Amino acid sequence: MYDKIVQIALLFDFYGQLLTEKQIEIIDMYYNDDLSLSEIAEQQDISRQGVYDTLKRAEKTLFEYEDKLGLVNRFLQQKESLSKINTMLDRTLEIEENDVGLIKDELENIKIYIENLI
Amino acid sequence: MYDKIVQIALLFDFYGQLLTEKQIEIIDMYYNDDLSLSEIAEQQDISRQGVYDTLKRAEKTLFEYEDKLGLVNRFLQQKESLSKINTMLDRTLEIEENDVGLIKDELENIKIYIENLI
Repeated sequence: MYDKIVQIALLFDFYGQLLTEKQIEIIDMYYNDDLSLSEIAEQQDISRQGVYDTLKRAEKTLFEYEDKLGLVNRFLQQKESLSKINTMLDRTLEIEENDVGLIKDELENIKIYIENLI
Repeated sequence: MYDKIVQIALLFDFYGQLLTEKQIEIIDMYYNDDLSLSEIAEQQDISRQGVYDTLKRAEKTLFEYEDKLGLVNRFLQQKESLSKINTMLDRTLEIEENDVGLIKDELENIKIYIENLI
């Protein structure tokens, strides 16, 4: 469930502006303000089923955009690469002070890695 | 002109799959295969004006997606950050071999910089 929330939040962050105003409002209330379907129904003056349907349709649309464009996936891969660079830097920082040659070799490796991302 | 081609190519790379099949075909022929409007008109069996209109409408749509989502801009900023990290690494590699303390300080700075991106 947590994974799904994170996933919808990311998709919403990327593609939310392509949804209708009503869909944006309801996704926002449900995922960001953490309101229940009944609470949203009351505030929006529509049925609980109506809220549920709007939510499901909005989620489906967000997943469809990702299927077509894959930009969240591209972004996550970028983040993963940055984490990897970070780990490489950590490893480099642990090298003994007297082995500057090795430190510089590691930095050259990191550079090659970054250049492949640019 | 070159800037515009690069910009459209990037927008097309990000949002192209949201265009119609015909728009995708024509953008592809014009920007990737470098065909003229007349050549595309002939191959598609439509008027030169028709090709022009389709092209302009497709470009407008791509710019509208970017106005709404700003994902190309986000991506370009990411690339710029990676270039900056690369420059920081270059600077670190130029530090004298006997100043390992300074090298490690620089690496800690780079790490902070990366962590802000993750």
